[in-house]
Amino acid sequence: MTPHRTDEAARLASGHVSPARLLASIEALAAFGTRPDHGVDRPALSATDFKARRHLIERAYALGCTVTTDACANLFMRRAGTEDLAPVMTGSHIDTQPTGGRLDGCYGVLAGIECIAALNDAGVSTRRPLEVVAWTNEEGTRFQPGAMGSSAFVDPALLERYGRAADTSGTTLADALDAHRRTFPGLAMRAEQDRAHAFIELHIEQGPQLELANVPLGVVSGIQGVRWYALTCKGVAAHAGTTPMHARHDAMTLAIALGTEIETFATALGREHTRVTFGRWSVTPNSINTIASEVTFTVDFRHPDADVLAAFDHRLAQCAARHRVATESLFSHEPVRFDDALIAHLGDACAAQGGRMLTLTSGAFHDAIYLAKHCPTAMLFVPSRGGISHNPNEATDDDHLVLGTRALAHALAALCNES
Amino acid sequence: MTPHRTDEAARLASGHVSPARLLASIEALAAFGTRPDHGVDRPALSATDFKARRHLIERAYALGCTVTTDACANLFMRRAGTEDLAPVMTGSHIDTQPTGGRLDGCYGVLAGIECIAALNDAGVSTRRPLEVVAWTNEEGTRFQPGAMGSSAFVDPALLERYGRAADTSGTTLADALDAHRRTFPGLAMRAEQDRAHAFIELHIEQGPQLELANVPLGVVSGIQGVRWYALTCKGVAAHAGTTPMHARHDAMTLAIALGTEIETFATALGREHTRVTFGRWSVTPNSINTIASEVTFTVDFRHPDADVLAAFDHRLAQCAARHRVATESLFSHEPVRFDDALIAHLGDACAAQGGRMLTLTSGAFHDAIYLAKHCPTAMLFVPSRGGISHNPNEATDDDHLVLGTRALAHALAALCNES
Repeated sequence: MTPHRTDEAARLASGHVSPARLLASIEALAAFGTRPDHGVDRPALSATDFKARRHLIERAYALGCTVTTDACANLFMRRAGTEDLAPVMTGSHIDTQPTGGRLDGCYGVLAGIECIAALNDAGVSTRRPLEVVAWTNEEGTRFQPGAMGSSAFVDPALLERYGRAADTSGTTLADALDAHRRTFPGLAMRAEQDRAHAFIELHIEQGPQLELANVPLGVVSGIQGVRWYALTCKGVAAHAGTTPMHARHDAMTLAIALGTEIETFATALGREHTRVTFGRWSVTPNSINTIASEVTFTVDFRHPDADVLAAFDHRLAQCAARHRVATESLFSHEPVRFDDALIAHLGDACAAQGGRMLTLTSGAFHDAIYLAKHCPTAMLFVPSRGGISHNPNEATDDDHLVLGTRALAHALAALCNES
Repeated sequence: MTPHRTDEAARLASGHVSPARLLASIEALAAFGTRPDHGVDRPALSATDFKARRHLIERAYALGCTVTTDACANLFMRRAGTEDLAPVMTGSHIDTQPTGGRLDGCYGVLAGIECIAALNDAGVSTRRPLEVVAWTNEEGTRFQPGAMGSSAFVDPALLERYGRAADTSGTTLADALDAHRRTFPGLAMRAEQDRAHAFIELHIEQGPQLELANVPLGVVSGIQGVRWYALTCKGVAAHAGTTPMHARHDAMTLAIALGTEIETFATALGREHTRVTFGRWSVTPNSINTIASEVTFTVDFRHPDADVLAAFDHRLAQCAARHRVATESLFSHEPVRFDDALIAHLGDACAAQGGRMLTLTSGAFHDAIYLAKHCPTAMLFVPSRGGISHNPNEATDDDHLVLGTRALAHALAALCNES
């Protein structure tokens, strides 16, 4: 392999991305845990996941990579660089929702492997190593919370708590990590080393914005902050026929009024960036002819601006106090702003593909949230048809899958030649 | 026994009601199916119910009654009259909710038996027979629908359909009726005969109106009509973080808006007699961070005026069409107006007790709804503490239980002497 000028290396890597190989690799990985409805069900660290990992490891070896793991079973597939420099990382995850699709997470991992294959085919060597990562348990479906692998990579102290997390059958993450070690005894542990030079995660958008704008590539400038609350409205169960309206304490009437009020102030605070959802409801006794004694519902509010999130917290607390409703904070995460230089880099990589691109904020969480604490990080999106994700019908046009991978290859090759 | 003037018979019957015997009989019946929380769980036609029935039958025999049954296992305990006239009927039911109290239904049956005992003790004979009935399966908890016994008494053709109703273990009502026949082979079938002369059902209010008005007796002028609807709001499941508000089809937002709109027009139509309840909710997929794809909720609307109920049907249909929401009618019953002469009779009986009384509409269903199609019918209420019913904490002050029974005895004695 010969050294190339950075722009030439980027152009060559991008040009050697093989659409057929990329699309075949997506089909091949989807075979592990495929569902009758064409979706995929591949719980983190399950037997199915282990088979999928073995498939990836064999591909990586065939491409000349070294493969390592770490204490949280993250899988690192590394193409060597010519100098002793920190690696450029890319990747995502391969665990899925129980009724998941073939692209969420998998696309980012397989596109990374395709970039290694393209660099090989192009005969391009890079100064820095290129490392493709499959992070463990991003979905948080089998073990809670999600993004265990990426967050424990950044903060290994988390692993002690994570190890005790159990799935519905009582198996703990620690048990599952043991099973992983027994299944892959030959995998070396990744050396503790300096921060990665950069992390780029390529992902399907899982929303409709690129499709609505008819744009094939999205550079992600950050990830919205989020607040999850459970609100519990108390009433008194009583007979729907015998209790006059003025004598009622109806938890459902209160919940409906609260829902309306919260949506109104959330929208006023968040304007066009508002995301507010009342997704989960529990009604007691949930009987046609009994006034509800208790209604608990969740509020999911997201916004890219930390000040707006704080204002929402304040308004929600006021509203709950006024109505004497108990609130429980279930989850909270501040907005993440990705690295400006990397965002510009990705813009250049998209421009080099000749495709139009949009800069947008991610509404979903990704492993990149945690990597952003570790090294310069950014994300690249391709459109999701109909905005559909976490669903067997999750789909992206082949052209978009290829274009995203070409932009990724362009950006990675350039970053791998940075000093 | 000697014949008495009607007013004297009524006064004597009322005066011979024994508080101790009445209250002891309530305790004795509650022993069949008593719960650790002081409540009662006595499913219709269960082994527990059969034991309770045997207890009642033995009491009736001891009081000199004849006891008969019919095709729906209703239990008729008859004190003979001096003339060959249609009987005056009273009673209610002894099946309970799974977490029921000791009074709902049972009070009316036991008060009726106490009236027979009081007439015996007073040495009063009446022209008409007095028949105390325990109607089968009023609650509708084991077999649906409720009020099977009273409705099949009035319309025996219903029994063919009822016979196929199965409980959760697969036992049908027909099976349970067979078991009843095998358990009580000595019970004669009640002779088919003319309509009863009158039916009076004494019951706890199961609501707060008498207590709020601080009045011990209520004459029930009728039973509200009711509409039960299920409304199904359709949306599209999508990610709560990635989907802009303008691109959403959120079934829960729609359901909240509908709830608000329906409550507003229901209250405008029904004014002070409105009863509107959104009791049962089903949310799909019911996940914090997924926009609801489907929300089904029930509307229970009640009103004593048939025109208001019809107007509600019309407004609801308009509202559902405007929002493209599917409606399903789950149950509908027109208001029942009780017999004016009987209402006046009960007013006199209450006045004779010296207690204040209120005329009110029943918000709950009772066997009297069906009996009203068979003969002149009315109901008498005593207060429910805190309006609580269908609950182990269901309670009525002893004084009120006694006063209600005295008023019942007064009214029955008078009616039994009518020509």
